Amino acid sequence: MDVPSGTLISDAARQAGVELLVPCGGQGRCGRCAVIVEAGEVRSRPTQRLSPEDVASGYVLACQTQIEADATITIPPQEKIERRIREGKRASAVELPFPYDFQDQPLHKYIVNLAPPSLEEQTDDWSRLKRELANRYNLTDVQVSLAVLAKLGKALRDGNWVVTVVVDLNTWDRPEGPPRLLDVLPGESLESLWAVAIDIGTTSNVVWLVDMVSGQVVAQAVDYNGQIARGEDVISRIIYAGKGDGLRELQELVVGTLNRLLGQVCAERDISPHEVYRAVVSGNTTMIHLLTAISPEPIRLMPFIPVVNEMPPFEAREIGLGINGQATVDCLPGIGSYVGADITAGVISSGMCRAQDLVLFLDIGTNGEMALGDCTWLIACACSAGPAFEGAGVVHGMRATEGAIEEVWVNSDDYEATYRVIGTVKPRGLCGSGLISLLGEMFAAGVIDKSGNIDLTLPTRRVREGAHGAEYVVAWASESAHGQDIALTAVDIDNLMRAKAAIYAGFSVLARSVGLSIADIGQVYIGGAFGQYLNVEKAVLIGMLPDMPYERYRFLGNTSVRGAYYALISNHVRREMTRVGRMMTYLELSADNTFFEEFNAAMFLPHTDEAQFPSVASLMRRSA
Amino acid sequence: MDVPSGTLISDAARQAGVELLVPCGGQGRCGRCAVIVEAGEVRSRPTQRLSPEDVASGYVLACQTQIEADATITIPPQEKIERRIREGKRASAVELPFPYDFQDQPLHKYIVNLAPPSLEEQTDDWSRLKRELANRYNLTDVQVSLAVLAKLGKALRDGNWVVTVVVDLNTWDRPEGPPRLLDVLPGESLESLWAVAIDIGTTSNVVWLVDMVSGQVVAQAVDYNGQIARGEDVISRIIYAGKGDGLRELQELVVGTLNRLLGQVCAERDISPHEVYRAVVSGNTTMIHLLTAISPEPIRLMPFIPVVNEMPPFEAREIGLGINGQATVDCLPGIGSYVGADITAGVISSGMCRAQDLVLFLDIGTNGEMALGDCTWLIACACSAGPAFEGAGVVHGMRATEGAIEEVWVNSDDYEATYRVIGTVKPRGLCGSGLISLLGEMFAAGVIDKSGNIDLTLPTRRVREGAHGAEYVVAWASESAHGQDIALTAVDIDNLMRAKAAIYAGFSVLARSVGLSIADIGQVYIGGAFGQYLNVEKAVLIGMLPDMPYERYRFLGNTSVRGAYYALISNHVRREMTRVGRMMTYLELSADNTFFEEFNAAMFLPHTDEAQFPSVASLMRRSA
Repeated sequence: MDVPSGTLISDAARQAGVELLVPCGGQGRCGRCAVIVEAGEVRSRPTQRLSPEDVASGYVLACQTQIEADATITIPPQEKIERRIREGKRASAVELPFPYDFQDQPLHKYIVNLAPPSLEEQTDDWSRLKRELANRYNLTDVQVSLAVLAKLGKALRDGNWVVTVVVDLNTWDRPEGPPRLLDVLPGESLESLWAVAIDIGTTSNVVWLVDMVSGQVVAQAVDYNGQIARGEDVISRIIYAGKGDGLRELQELVVGTLNRLLGQVCAERDISPHEVYRAVVSGNTTMIHLLTAISPEPIRLMPFIPVVNEMPPFEAREIGLGINGQATVDCLPGIGSYVGADITAGVISSGMCRAQDLVLFLDIGTNGEMALGDCTWLIACACSAGPAFEGAGVVHGMRATEGAIEEVWVNSDDYEATYRVIGTVKPRGLCGSGLISLLGEMFAAGVIDKSGNIDLTLPTRRVREGAHGAEYVVAWASESAHGQDIALTAVDIDNLMRAKAAIYAGFSVLARSVGLSIADIGQVYIGGAFGQYLNVEKAVLIGMLPDMPYERYRFLGNTSVRGAYYALISNHVRREMTRVGRMMTYLELSADNTFFEEFNAAMFLPHTDEAQFPSVASLMRRSA
Repeated sequence: MDVPSGTLISDAARQAGVELLVPCGGQGRCGRCAVIVEAGEVRSRPTQRLSPEDVASGYVLACQTQIEADATITIPPQEKIERRIREGKRASAVELPFPYDFQDQPLHKYIVNLAPPSLEEQTDDWSRLKRELANRYNLTDVQVSLAVLAKLGKALRDGNWVVTVVVDLNTWDRPEGPPRLLDVLPGESLESLWAVAIDIGTTSNVVWLVDMVSGQVVAQAVDYNGQIARGEDVISRIIYAGKGDGLRELQELVVGTLNRLLGQVCAERDISPHEVYRAVVSGNTTMIHLLTAISPEPIRLMPFIPVVNEMPPFEAREIGLGINGQATVDCLPGIGSYVGADITAGVISSGMCRAQDLVLFLDIGTNGEMALGDCTWLIACACSAGPAFEGAGVVHGMRATEGAIEEVWVNSDDYEATYRVIGTVKPRGLCGSGLISLLGEMFAAGVIDKSGNIDLTLPTRRVREGAHGAEYVVAWASESAHGQDIALTAVDIDNLMRAKAAIYAGFSVLARSVGLSIADIGQVYIGGAFGQYLNVEKAVLIGMLPDMPYERYRFLGNTSVRGAYYALISNHVRREMTRVGRMMTYLELSADNTFFEEFNAAMFLPHTDEAQFPSVASLMRRSA
C-alpha cells in the first residue's frame, strides 16, 4: 500500500486494516506497538522501550516511526513482543563484573599429612595437627571448637594420619586474627568447597549457593520471608517481636525459610547442607536483629538506635541455620536503624563507592533506602515510604505475584485501560509497578490532576463514586479472577502520593544536606527486586524518581545478595564493606526539619516545583 | 602409785588397773595410747603419731614414754583421742600459701557510663559501648556473643546508659588475645563476682566457689562422679563411651554431678549459678575428654594418644554446665593420656616446679600418677595401679565412706585385729588406707611373708582356708554391718601387691630414666584425696612408698582443685601451667622395658632389694 511520506507506521497499519495494539494511545510509552522494519527508510524518535539490540534487529515503535520511503515492515506475533518487553526489561539489569582478586577468599581446604604417633612420640592429636598446620601452611594459633575436636581423633585414624581440613582464615574480621578450623575430614578431599550468600528482605529471602573452588554461583533459590504472616513491614515485625515469645518466633520463622532455601540449593547440586562452611548475610537492620534474636525494639523508638550495626561473626549452630554447625555466619555491616547491610552491600556491589560522578543509589522495598555520594564520600537515609508499593494499604494492592497487574496504559482519548498481568491468569489486583504505572497513566491521561484528585466529570464509567469514595476502575469484574472490579480509590492515591513524596523528599534532603541539588546527580542506581520491574518513565511522571535522561538510570537487580556474594569470595570486598559502612554518614530524617517541607512540596504530580520535572512538563503540554 | 624410773607409762597404767588401748601392740605405730603429762619428768621416743602442737600440749604416747621421776598423767577420753588422731592427720596436710599476685586474675567487672544517643548522635549500642570500653578502660577489640548482645539494648536503657560489664580478659590464652564481654547488667553492681574451681576425679568431683572480689574460696562441695555406675576406672569408662550413645551419656552424668554441686555451693552463698562467670577445670585426661564429649577411645589403644592435652577454652553452655552460659570454661592442660591436668595442677600448686631439691609428686587415685623433678626439669608417668586402693578388685573392698575400715592394727603376739571405722557405724568393708594398713600390719605381725603368702600354721582362727583360698579375718560376722566376716584373701593380697609394686616401679623407672635413684629424692609430695588418709608408715612397710624419714613427706590434700583455684585467680599461674605442661616429659611406661623388671622386683614385701627399705628391715629385725 501507499502512504504519504511522514506517515506513522501505526497510522499506515490502521489504514491497511491491521489493528496494532497501542495501549498508551500512541505516546511511545508502552512499547507494545513494536514492529520490524525489514527494509526501506523510516525515521524514529528515540525510545527507551527498545533496547540497542532491538534497534539493531530493526525494531521500531510503530507509533513513533514515520515512513520516509518504500519500506517492508513485519508485525511480529504478539507473544513475541510480550516476551521481548519482559526480557528486555530484565536484560536492562546490568551484569556487574566482579572487580577484585578471587584468590582473596577466607575459606580454604588444606591436606595435612601427619607423622603417626608412637610410644616414643606421644604428642596429642590436636597438637600434632596444629604443629603441621603451622609448619606446612604457616597457619598459627588456629582456633577450634569442641565439635571439631570431637571429630578429630577418628578422622586422623580413619584417614591413616592424612586429613583434609576446612579453615576459615577469618582475615577480614581482624587482620591479625586467628584462623578457625571448621572441619576435619579423613583422607584427601579437595574437590569441593561450598558457601552461601543470603539476602533477608522484609518480604523475600534469597539464597545463592557458591562453589568456592570456582568462585561461581551455582544455584539460587528465593521465597517469601516466613515472618510475613506476623507483619508486613519492619515496624509491625518489631512490635510483634516485643510480645511474649515473638522475638524467638520471628527468628525461627526466618531461619525456617532460609533452611528450606538452603535445602533447595543443596539438593540442586546434590550436596549436604553440612558441606556448606560459610554464610554471608545481607539484609536490613531489623532483619539482622531478628535473625540473631536481638530485640529490635530500640529501632522503632526515639531516637531510633539499633543494638548493633556491625554484628560480630557467629557460628551457624547458634541460630539453628541448617548448614555446617561450625560455619561462620558473617552479617554484613549496617549503617543505622533504617539503612542496613543491604544498602552497604548495594553501595559496594554497584561500584558506587568507586564512582567519579555523583551517584544516587536507591533501594525501594518496604522502605525507601538511598545513598548519595561518590568515591570520596557517602551519605544515606531512609524514608518510610510505607508498604504501598508492595501492595499494602491499597484496596486492590497485592505483591508482585501471579495475577498482579504490573503495567497499565490509559488511553487519553477515551480513558479506557489496558494492562499486563503477571502470568497467564486473570488479574487479582495491582502490584507496585502496576500502581506506579497506573498513577502515571491516570495523570498523563488527565484522569487525575496535579493534586491527585480524580476528575469525576470525565465521560467514562471507569471514573465513579465507589464505596471508598472516588475511584477509577482498571479491570471490570468480568475480567478479574475474583469477579470484582479492580479499582484505584482516592485513598489509595493519597497513600501512593505519600509514598512517592517521601522517596523524592529523601533525595532532596540528602542532596541539600551536602549542598547539592538533584540536578547534580550523574547516575541513579536502582537496586532491589522491585527496581527490576519498575517503569522509570512512569516513576518520573509521578515525581517519584528524578527527571533525568533515562540512560542515567541503571537497574542493578538484587544488589544486596550480590554484595553478600562478593564479600564471600573476597576478603578485600568484605573489608571494604566495613570501611564504607563506617565512613557513610547516616541522616536520620526524623531529625531533619527540611524533610517535611520537601515532603509537602513533593505531594503534587509530579512536584510543586515543575522546573524539577521538565520532561513531564513538556509531555503534559503535548498531551494538553 | 610408784613405779621404777624407766617404766613405760603404758605398763604403769596396766599395773594401776587402767586398761589403755594399744592396738599396735605397743610399737608406737597407732597413736591410740596418747596421754597427757600434766607435770613431772618423762622421756619419750620421737613419734610421727603426735603433731608438734600435741607435744607442746603435753601429749605423749604411753607405749613410747618412760617415767623418769614423779609425774601427773591424765588419760583423755577415748573420743578425744580418736578426734585428735583424725584431725591431726588432716592438719598434717600443708596449707600452701598462694605465692602470686592476686590482681592478675582474668575476670573483671567495669562500670561504664555512656553518653545517651540522640537523633543527631546515632551510634549503635554496641559501638557506643565498645568505644567507651576502649577510651575508659583501654579494652580494645572486645569480643561478644549473640546472647550478650541480646541483653545489651535493654540493659543500657534500663540502666539509663550506665551499665556494669563482666569481662574476661582472657590474657592467659593468647597474651595479645581479645577480651570477651560475658555479661552486661543495668546500673552499677560491683559488689560481687563469682567463679568456680572444679576437680573431676574418676571417683569424686569437687567444686569450690570463689569470691573473685576477695580471691577467697567461700564454699565447697564434693560428691561421687555420676559416671561411677558406668565403670569404676578410666578404662571401663572409655569402653562404655565407645558403645552407642555412651559418650554423650557419660558427659551428661558428670555434668549432672557438677551442676548439683554448683547448685549446692551457690545455694550456700545465696547466689544464682548464672552469676558464676568462669570455671577452671582440672582432672585426668579421660575425664576432660568425657566432659567435652570428645571420644577418649585412642587413650586406651596403642600407642595411647589423647585427642587433646591443651583443651581450648569454651563457653559453659556448650556442655550444659549450669553456670552463666557465656562463662569461659578453662580446662587445665594435661601432659599425656595417663598424666592429666590434675598432675599439672598438682605440680604447680605444690610448688614443686619451684623446688631446689629433687621432689617426687605422687597422686594415688584410681591410677597412680607421679612426677619427678625440680625447678629446672620435670618428668611424669602413670602406672596402672588399678582400682585396688579404691576398694575394687578386693572381695571386701569399698570406697572410703561410712562403714569402711580405714585403719587396722594386728597384734604381733596373738594376731588379733583392732580397727577404726569411718563414722560411728559397724564396718562393711575395707577402704584403701585400711587395706594398706592391714597389709602392713599382717606383714609386721608375721601373718604374711615377704611374698605375701598367708601363714596358715599360725595359732589363730583368724587365719583360715576360705571360699576364696587362704584368708585373714579382720572383723567377725558379729561385729560387721552385714553379718558376714570381713576378710582379706590371698587373691586380694595379690592384687594389692601388684598395685603397690606398680607404684613403686613407677618411682624407680622415673628416677632411673634420668640417671637418679630413689635415694636422691629430697621430698615426697602426696596429693589426691586418698593421700590425705594414707598412713605413710604402713605404706613404707609394704614397699609402696620409698623408705625415707617421714618428715620428707608432705600431704597436700586435693592439689588438683587447688591448682584450678590458683589458675582461676592468677593468669600468671595459668600461664605457668601451660609452660610446665609443655616442658614436662611424659614417660609412657608401656614403652619402657625396665618397668617390668622394676615391677617384678617390687612384688615382694617391702621389696626384693631390702637395702632400699632400711627402716622396714630394722623393724622386722626388732619384731623377730
